[in-house]
Amino acid sequence: MSSYNELSVEELCELKNGLEDKYNKFKSMGLSLDMSRGKPGGIQLNENNKLLDEVCSDSDFYSENGWDVRNYGLPYGIPECQRLFAEIMGVDEKNVVVCGNSSLNIMFDYISQCMTHGTGGCEPWMKQGKVKFLCPVPGYDRHFRILEYFGIEMINIPLLDDGPDMDMIESYVVDSSVKGMICVPKYSNPTGITFSDETVRRIAALKPAAGDFRILWDNAYIVHDLSESPDSLLEIFSECKKHNSEDMIIEVISSSKISYPGAGVAAVAASDSNINEIKKRIAVQTIGPDKINQIRHVRFFGSADGVYAHMKKLAKHMAPRFELVLKIFDEELSGKGIAEWTNPNGGYFINLKVLPGCAGRTVSLCADVGVKLTGAGAAFPYGKDPEDAYIRIAPSYPSEDELQSAMEVLCVCVRLAAVEKILEKREKS
Amino acid sequence: MSSYNELSVEELCELKNGLEDKYNKFKSMGLSLDMSRGKPGGIQLNENNKLLDEVCSDSDFYSENGWDVRNYGLPYGIPECQRLFAEIMGVDEKNVVVCGNSSLNIMFDYISQCMTHGTGGCEPWMKQGKVKFLCPVPGYDRHFRILEYFGIEMINIPLLDDGPDMDMIESYVVDSSVKGMICVPKYSNPTGITFSDETVRRIAALKPAAGDFRILWDNAYIVHDLSESPDSLLEIFSECKKHNSEDMIIEVISSSKISYPGAGVAAVAASDSNINEIKKRIAVQTIGPDKINQIRHVRFFGSADGVYAHMKKLAKHMAPRFELVLKIFDEELSGKGIAEWTNPNGGYFINLKVLPGCAGRTVSLCADVGVKLTGAGAAFPYGKDPEDAYIRIAPSYPSEDELQSAMEVLCVCVRLAAVEKILEKREKS
Repeated sequence: MSSYNELSVEELCELKNGLEDKYNKFKSMGLSLDMSRGKPGGIQLNENNKLLDEVCSDSDFYSENGWDVRNYGLPYGIPECQRLFAEIMGVDEKNVVVCGNSSLNIMFDYISQCMTHGTGGCEPWMKQGKVKFLCPVPGYDRHFRILEYFGIEMINIPLLDDGPDMDMIESYVVDSSVKGMICVPKYSNPTGITFSDETVRRIAALKPAAGDFRILWDNAYIVHDLSESPDSLLEIFSECKKHNSEDMIIEVISSSKISYPGAGVAAVAASDSNINEIKKRIAVQTIGPDKINQIRHVRFFGSADGVYAHMKKLAKHMAPRFELVLKIFDEELSGKGIAEWTNPNGGYFINLKVLPGCAGRTVSLCADVGVKLTGAGAAFPYGKDPEDAYIRIAPSYPSEDELQSAMEVLCVCVRLAAVEKILEKREKS
Repeated sequence: MSSYNELSVEELCELKNGLEDKYNKFKSMGLSLDMSRGKPGGIQLNENNKLLDEVCSDSDFYSENGWDVRNYGLPYGIPECQRLFAEIMGVDEKNVVVCGNSSLNIMFDYISQCMTHGTGGCEPWMKQGKVKFLCPVPGYDRHFRILEYFGIEMINIPLLDDGPDMDMIESYVVDSSVKGMICVPKYSNPTGITFSDETVRRIAALKPAAGDFRILWDNAYIVHDLSESPDSLLEIFSECKKHNSEDMIIEVISSSKISYPGAGVAAVAASDSNINEIKKRIAVQTIGPDKINQIRHVRFFGSADGVYAHMKKLAKHMAPRFELVLKIFDEELSGKGIAEWTNPNGGYFINLKVLPGCAGRTVSLCADVGVKLTGAGAAFPYGKDPEDAYIRIAPSYPSEDELQSAMEVLCVCVRLAAVEKILEKREKS
């Protein structure tokens, strides 16, 4: 099949009629499918349920340091859980604090801490006037919402196949009002790319003008491999040590997509200086995290190896969903010059790039026949995709049958929106 | 026995020698007792353990609105848990958000929100210059540490038997830089008093100059009755409605001292306007709280009545401890003119007031023989008790035998410090 752009107006109109017929059939089917968020499906969650049996009424309630996990105290987490997360991240456990159930919460609180108290001996960000952050795009909508909430100006940095455009980043960090970057370095949300070794090295070697420049290194998908040849990400702190730049990095991870998204455990790793600032705040903010849930996780997983083995089980649910999406995209969208998509080795998302100006229309067409996707623009600061071209596909939640239906709908909508756009252009010219 | 003040120097010296002998005996006993924090004891925690069996691998995981509690979502808590806390607080469930495990965390985050975003349409507190808070004293050390962390100036307000000195509060709130008050209205930490109806009514009727005046109403001991004739606290929002002043109140509670201090559930209640501000922040801060733990609590307690029945069980562990402390104080300290103490109907603490200038010495004498008490001054802003007279007694954690030993040590130390102080004064005069 030839590219849509090469078709005549007549051929395009004919194509449009055919697509509209298909689309109207979907309309009559009364679909109701929600693919808007990266939520694991129920079957996947069932893999974790034995975790809940790890602590019950007749359990031993003591952490390895003899602390009753039911009681107050240990504001930085139980030592065995600090060690588990340290092992996964490849950092020293003294640099890890284990918190509640949400790494997003850790990032929000960290930004808030910088706003009110500053970091690295610098003035609080709230007292520094305009503060800016670099945002590799497309990226994670909830990251951008944190920055927007605090009035931090966001600067789009194109996310390439090997990570953010480092030339651009290097040119921006000479500005001392640029205070940081927020990113997902492995299996990035939503494109699924992993920062190359070269990118990680260039990040570690940055010399920002701001002494309080901080990179929120959201390693959400650190163990979320789906392929037999998974990506590998250089451990950032080791690279930073070569440049004495460890203070730039605030790394977070969570078990949200390992155990339970609602009832997992999240942790932060940072340099000695940063972790001390974080600990100083946490000691005032709370008497301690939910340590019963921490010990539940340690007992269930045992070690990082236990986590890796568990992730292989989860991959059995995720990988077929990714394959299904890619198969349908290949069948329905390839060769038409109207869409590109990523084929990640892990993570939670596939990114679909449609013709410029077509993402919003495509998502809206889908919504009108009962298929809810992540909002167009969501992957960009302020919800504004300058190209209106990116659509995040989250295959994790629906059943495979539902996913198949949703993708068929999506492909018809992508094609219909593309034909409409091309016809519109022809009319104008 | 006559008051120490009436004794001659000779009699005082003789008394001192006797007390020193006793004290030295304690020294040789190698005690190691920690009474520094208001932690429930292990036996008391065991009363809650069936809670852990409420959700296990073969459980139903759906909240009443059909949400899988293991998954993301419901940032304001599951509806049945909102309702449970609303019932306990006597407020409308639409005004309740159920969060993580810590009401302290809720208060910290709320103050932080006021610092960065302000409230009630006013400028962020960080942009308003000096901001002040009224602090009924003695009070809860962790409250004061939050305010200190944010650089909020704390003003001591004497806590009387029926609540804070309202005349003083009324005179302070005409200053628009006075932005709030933080208090424990029922079974106050550490004196155990409950605000009288008259006090609650005067609080509700306040007309602060600051439109963003906020009272953190920490109802930590709302269901923590120990006596057959418990205190009752007027529901504050109902009183505020009469004056259209609901926006002044941010009420928090938690199950920390109902279920587990480390793994309970905490909630906040606030006016429509305030709860919307809080929700707006929480929707950015997290994808959702630990809803598995919320449903665990709802299933275990069932309703507010279930909580009240459970508290009666816990009171069986707590009440004898309170009685023991009071019995020893009565035997060892009464009639000597050197100490006064409270006899609360509930809560977690007894407040011991020793001779001015003697609290620090007493706590230090205790520490030197292995009995760790809450630091002298802890119940005051900046850790500074202007009279150096208040000692917080936390009888909940040690066994009754340990508590007996600790109180015997404490009484000897109180007496020794008093004798030293009186002798010192005599020498000076």
